[in-house]
Amino acid sequence: MLLDAAPLAEVWRGPIAESEHVGHVVVAGPGGDVAEAWGAPGTVVLPRSSAKMIQALPLVASGAAEAAGLTARQLALACASHEGAPRHADGVADWLAARGLSEADLRCGPQPPRDKVLKHEMLRAGETPTQLHNNCSGKHAGFLTLMQHLGAGAEYHEADHPVQRAALEAFEAVTDAPSPCYGIDGCSAPNFATTMQAMARAMATFATAHTRSGALDRAAARLVRAMIAHPKDVAGEGRACTLLMQAAREPAALKTGAEGFFVAILPERGLGVAVKAADGATRAAESAIAAVLVRLGVLDPAHPEVARFLRPEIRNFRGLVTGRIEPAAALLA
Amino acid sequence: MLLDAAPLAEVWRGPIAESEHVGHVVVAGPGGDVAEAWGAPGTVVLPRSSAKMIQALPLVASGAAEAAGLTARQLALACASHEGAPRHADGVADWLAARGLSEADLRCGPQPPRDKVLKHEMLRAGETPTQLHNNCSGKHAGFLTLMQHLGAGAEYHEADHPVQRAALEAFEAVTDAPSPCYGIDGCSAPNFATTMQAMARAMATFATAHTRSGALDRAAARLVRAMIAHPKDVAGEGRACTLLMQAAREPAALKTGAEGFFVAILPERGLGVAVKAADGATRAAESAIAAVLVRLGVLDPAHPEVARFLRPEIRNFRGLVTGRIEPAAALLA
Repeated sequence: MLLDAAPLAEVWRGPIAESEHVGHVVVAGPGGDVAEAWGAPGTVVLPRSSAKMIQALPLVASGAAEAAGLTARQLALACASHEGAPRHADGVADWLAARGLSEADLRCGPQPPRDKVLKHEMLRAGETPTQLHNNCSGKHAGFLTLMQHLGAGAEYHEADHPVQRAALEAFEAVTDAPSPCYGIDGCSAPNFATTMQAMARAMATFATAHTRSGALDRAAARLVRAMIAHPKDVAGEGRACTLLMQAAREPAALKTGAEGFFVAILPERGLGVAVKAADGATRAAESAIAAVLVRLGVLDPAHPEVARFLRPEIRNFRGLVTGRIEPAAALLA
Repeated sequence: MLLDAAPLAEVWRGPIAESEHVGHVVVAGPGGDVAEAWGAPGTVVLPRSSAKMIQALPLVASGAAEAAGLTARQLALACASHEGAPRHADGVADWLAARGLSEADLRCGPQPPRDKVLKHEMLRAGETPTQLHNNCSGKHAGFLTLMQHLGAGAEYHEADHPVQRAALEAFEAVTDAPSPCYGIDGCSAPNFATTMQAMARAMATFATAHTRSGALDRAAARLVRAMIAHPKDVAGEGRACTLLMQAAREPAALKTGAEGFFVAILPERGLGVAVKAADGATRAAESAIAAVLVRLGVLDPAHPEVARFLRPEIRNFRGLVTGRIEPAAALLA
């Protein structure tokens, strides 16, 4: 993977480039072709949580979301890697209760909330994190809603369950490629492998979905609208997805993934973007996706919420600026 | 830096090598020559906290440690990136009190303890982390002790202060090379740049110091003995430095550094080792230093505390093993 990788970002401390990140970036055009690429578009990757809007496709395309009366905010939660703040955990709890389900039906496992205020409040109160706080709990509420709709068994996270078979079918449809294999994700659901090129193509499929009328296209367009309308539900306070969506000059759906993944859906241009830091570093993926979106004119590099991801300052324990992350010039130029 | 880097470790999830780490590894022989190397020995790096035993040299070589009656445990704390557990924070508090100093004299800045039990206890009690909990507080207690000995001013962390000038002089002596520049570290002290080869040579200088009798050599040998005698003070529960030192088949002083650094001092062989993950990943540096020490016969790969750093399992929120980190075969073979 590293042999063909391209520079993504450098980590500077004083006069020294102390660390460096490389990876792969693909911009796919409206037809799914590679419009621009850095690194190797054929690299096989696990898109991790950057695939959540794909995993949510069967929920909408099957009619399950409609039948359950899901709102746009709930669809945004289904695509989210949220920080487990009250708006997210309570949102999922309400969703489950309305379906006659509870936290115990989730299979994502408990995760301490990323939201520091809540995390510290829970610690002070002696409370234990639940599965509702898991960043994937919205995706799993979506899986459960589809499971009910299909009348399928409770272990909806298993690879041979109808919910996951539907997710794989949708994944192969929007990537327009067979998935060679899968890994088990942090939330215990399968995460399907594909190439960087195919993942960017999938994002372009989402970006152009509003121009077509098939069931999967209408589902994709609805999920994109939901993400763009509810950026705080897709991630949360201080998080890259939320802040960059809010800062964008045009509607854009952005989604992070573990191990240095990031994707962008640009409906006004019909473009899809996929970024993977080869070493799995989130700081590199955030700087690189910001750089590509600056290059495309979607983000203003002078916007403070863009700058904090594009070229973040590194501060030490006394608050002094000791360095910065610098995106690769080739991504910006 | 990445162009000449060598594979260090792969991160596997199911059938996919999801992420990969490259970097530089140098083993220096007793004469300071390069015995083995992977990547580019000439790469200029910041060794960060892996240089702490070098920064502590003037404290001992000047006679300040002797005059202050410092114990071996205190010298281990001076070389530590500790986790701010009570043994560390209280140890530094007692040291400062005995010198007529207090937490307010430190310039390292406050850091929440890494020790989770203490961190959560402090949160529950509404307590704020202090500079004593900073992983570098022992190094700074050493700086303060030298400052008193030299009768120098309070801002001991500034690059032109006699304490830091002495640190630079010691650094250039044991690396046997001029330092081209420095960065400001997380604790606000200067961190001097050098090459991978020179950093490995410095570790070999420490490893052979007990065979020589100069003031700097006696200081180096004393610091190595202190680190080996007090592995829990050098890092803490569950930390790589502590556990790998405890697991070693022979006396070895190990020290991590931020941004993917790791060093080893092997006094019985007179060898020094330096590892730098080019992307700054701690998980890669830990796996790589364990691999090199397995290769040398210092660590047993079957030892459970070695395996957890050499080839760590990746578990998800439900505790399922979803992947593993695999060290590069070339480091082990």
